[in-house]
Amino acid sequence: MTLKLYYASGACSFVPHTMLEMAGATFEPVAVKLHKNEQNSPEYQAINPRGQVPVLADEGEVITQIMAIIAYIDARFPENAFIPKDPLARARFVETLAWMNNTVHPTFTHIFMPHKFSDDEAAQGQMKRFGVGHYRKLMEELQGLVKKAHAEGRDWLGGVHCGPLDAYALTLLRWATIAGINPDDYPELWAHVQRTALVPAVARAMERERLQLSLYQPG
Amino acid sequence: MTLKLYYASGACSFVPHTMLEMAGATFEPVAVKLHKNEQNSPEYQAINPRGQVPVLADEGEVITQIMAIIAYIDARFPENAFIPKDPLARARFVETLAWMNNTVHPTFTHIFMPHKFSDDEAAQGQMKRFGVGHYRKLMEELQGLVKKAHAEGRDWLGGVHCGPLDAYALTLLRWATIAGINPDDYPELWAHVQRTALVPAVARAMERERLQLSLYQPG
Repeated sequence: MTLKLYYASGACSFVPHTMLEMAGATFEPVAVKLHKNEQNSPEYQAINPRGQVPVLADEGEVITQIMAIIAYIDARFPENAFIPKDPLARARFVETLAWMNNTVHPTFTHIFMPHKFSDDEAAQGQMKRFGVGHYRKLMEELQGLVKKAHAEGRDWLGGVHCGPLDAYALTLLRWATIAGINPDDYPELWAHVQRTALVPAVARAMERERLQLSLYQPG
Repeated sequence: MTLKLYYASGACSFVPHTMLEMAGATFEPVAVKLHKNEQNSPEYQAINPRGQVPVLADEGEVITQIMAIIAYIDARFPENAFIPKDPLARARFVETLAWMNNTVHPTFTHIFMPHKFSDDEAAQGQMKRFGVGHYRKLMEELQGLVKKAHAEGRDWLGGVHCGPLDAYALTLLRWATIAGINPDDYPELWAHVQRTALVPAVARAMERERLQLSLYQPG
């Protein structure tokens, strides 16, 4: 087996996970249990000293960072056309992906793991509260991207096929439900995510990761 | 004039700024004065509703996000080979660039603009203090990348030429000096950054932005 994907259930590693399923790739999925702190084990630190998922290993070459892994899977399975080739269309794709990765994702980190930004408990509580408000605005903005795609006649965020941007959107809205946000507050986004979850490759990745789409609990 | 770069002096827009200089591109540099809050003016919001720099406009097409702008400039000026073509080498490049963009850059934001993460003053102070400690570790890690490049016989972070990774490293170490960190604490990184600043295209961008390489004040 040449390809190995190190993933954590529900983490952003879900995005390359769905890509490998979409490509029909032969790969070994390796679960990293964050609740057991496996990302900080000497074994995993030897693979990725930053202790993060996802990691893609290809014949012993280790690639970290979701932005790099997505580009690499795209190049390795060109027939799937995960990323547009035209420079402007490619820039548009990277623009949205980078925003998800450097803005939406870390906003959730402030809610879910505020200890990464302060060792003071009161400050962590403040960051968490502020983060939820910010995350709501970002979900609004993400819904705007879904509406824009539909208005332009595109069924999916990246073009004519379900792809990494849609899988990332699913992950980010799923995190919103963990943060106590009701997905019904974003009906177009929620419908898009539910439709994404029905794509067979996405459904297979969800099943392997044992993911529930919404963890929102009213009240 | 087809290309316009919206930049703020000393911001990460310095990276595409140096690329356009390296490419010998004809472009119109447009300064956005953050201290005058111009990024939130109706005029700038019409260009980029997120109120961020850099923005690259090409014949009216507006591209945001440094990750996307770097990829676009690379595609538009292929003879400069800013990003390697080989999939693995490209992934290595994107890996480092993404880490700078999603980890090092936002750590500085916690020091410089903590109000982006909490409206509580005490929490902002805590985040700032914690952020400086974190930023020191990241400068150590960045210095490790410089040492690794040199050990592998590469003069620059991205390969044989000075490129966007070196310009970003310069920006990030310059920010360290704003955060009160002595660049002499990272001698190999500091030497690399000083060498980067001497590259003519980089020097031209620094002159236009009126940048001092170190703002560190002892005591």
